[in-house]
Amino acid sequence: MKIKEEITIPPYEGRSTLLQPGEELVIIDVDGKQVGDFVCFNKNDSNEFVSPVHMRASLSSIRLKVGDPLYSNKRRPLMTLAEDTVGKHDFFFPACDYYRYKVDYGLEDHPNCHDNLQKALAAYGLGEKPVPDPINLFMNNVLDETGDYKLSEPLSKPGDYVRLKALEEVVVACSTCSQDMEPVNGWKVTSLKMQKMASN
Amino acid sequence: MKIKEEITIPPYEGRSTLLQPGEELVIIDVDGKQVGDFVCFNKNDSNEFVSPVHMRASLSSIRLKVGDPLYSNKRRPLMTLAEDTVGKHDFFFPACDYYRYKVDYGLEDHPNCHDNLQKALAAYGLGEKPVPDPINLFMNNVLDETGDYKLSEPLSKPGDYVRLKALEEVVVACSTCSQDMEPVNGWKVTSLKMQKMASN
Repeated sequence: MKIKEEITIPPYEGRSTLLQPGEELVIIDVDGKQVGDFVCFNKNDSNEFVSPVHMRASLSSIRLKVGDPLYSNKRRPLMTLAEDTVGKHDFFFPACDYYRYKVDYGLEDHPNCHDNLQKALAAYGLGEKPVPDPINLFMNNVLDETGDYKLSEPLSKPGDYVRLKALEEVVVACSTCSQDMEPVNGWKVTSLKMQKMASN
Repeated sequence: MKIKEEITIPPYEGRSTLLQPGEELVIIDVDGKQVGDFVCFNKNDSNEFVSPVHMRASLSSIRLKVGDPLYSNKRRPLMTLAEDTVGKHDFFFPACDYYRYKVDYGLEDHPNCHDNLQKALAAYGLGEKPVPDPINLFMNNVLDETGDYKLSEPLSKPGDYVRLKALEEVVVACSTCSQDMEPVNGWKVTSLKMQKMASN
């Protein structure tokens, strides 16, 4: 497949792009162990967006698998997970936000995925919308048998990726998760790369 | 403790009430096996509400335990789970809504928790706010070791209850989960009862 556009997401930032139905997006963990907080809106209905809580219902799972549709808050698939070289992601954890760093670390001005995503979405007129809960690509929350879990380092190695296929015209945004005080990103924040592929 | 107010939530409906800091709310599963979709707003800041996705982060768990604070989207505890005679609840599943019955069952007019909660919240001027994701009291999603799960009948017997303590002035709403085509409520929808207790 032909790469139509390549977008680097620098550490502590977010980026967005538009996909037509049939187009694919490859999100690459350049250096490994970097979580990407990912959101997706229906371009033609800004009240419809990929919604992890509805995905957990429609998939009867808290595990994301190749072939899974990414369901919206209107219970419709907007994209599918077409390929995945890692196999471990999260879709029950929130984006880090102002309150996370303020309440848990006493920091007033730490970069955070919520704000990164909001800025990236503003490029498509979605900056005033509430930021949906993200799919946390490459995030590795390890559950124990009681339902408690530990934030652990991602299993992704340099160059690992996921490939997502658009089923509708969608605006997608991704943030390099800005958490540098937990093992979530291997204790440091690095770049991700998005490649937009032509449809077949 | 003295009961200040007793509210029956009929099948397929929602009810709301106001609690002062220190007051407690007992939610009773009258006939057993009935899920209650529960939401809570800060009365003095309608942009703050109990948020399951943030609770899962702050609690490092997808299991609700006695003593757990119910955290808000601003990562602050608005209530705590003070007592629980069942021990199995859900806080990763969405409220059933119009789209659930339309998409999955082809039904246009099935009662649903989203709308029940919205109507109940309107009594406190919160009817225009997006309905937050609920805590699904008594809901029994049984996870397997891979992260898939099955909707199962609640473990709650007639008279089982949870007791929640308000830490702030809060508006709470609860809906008798209106799902009658799955084992979620033991295949039928029955009443719940809310008792508002005086503070100590």
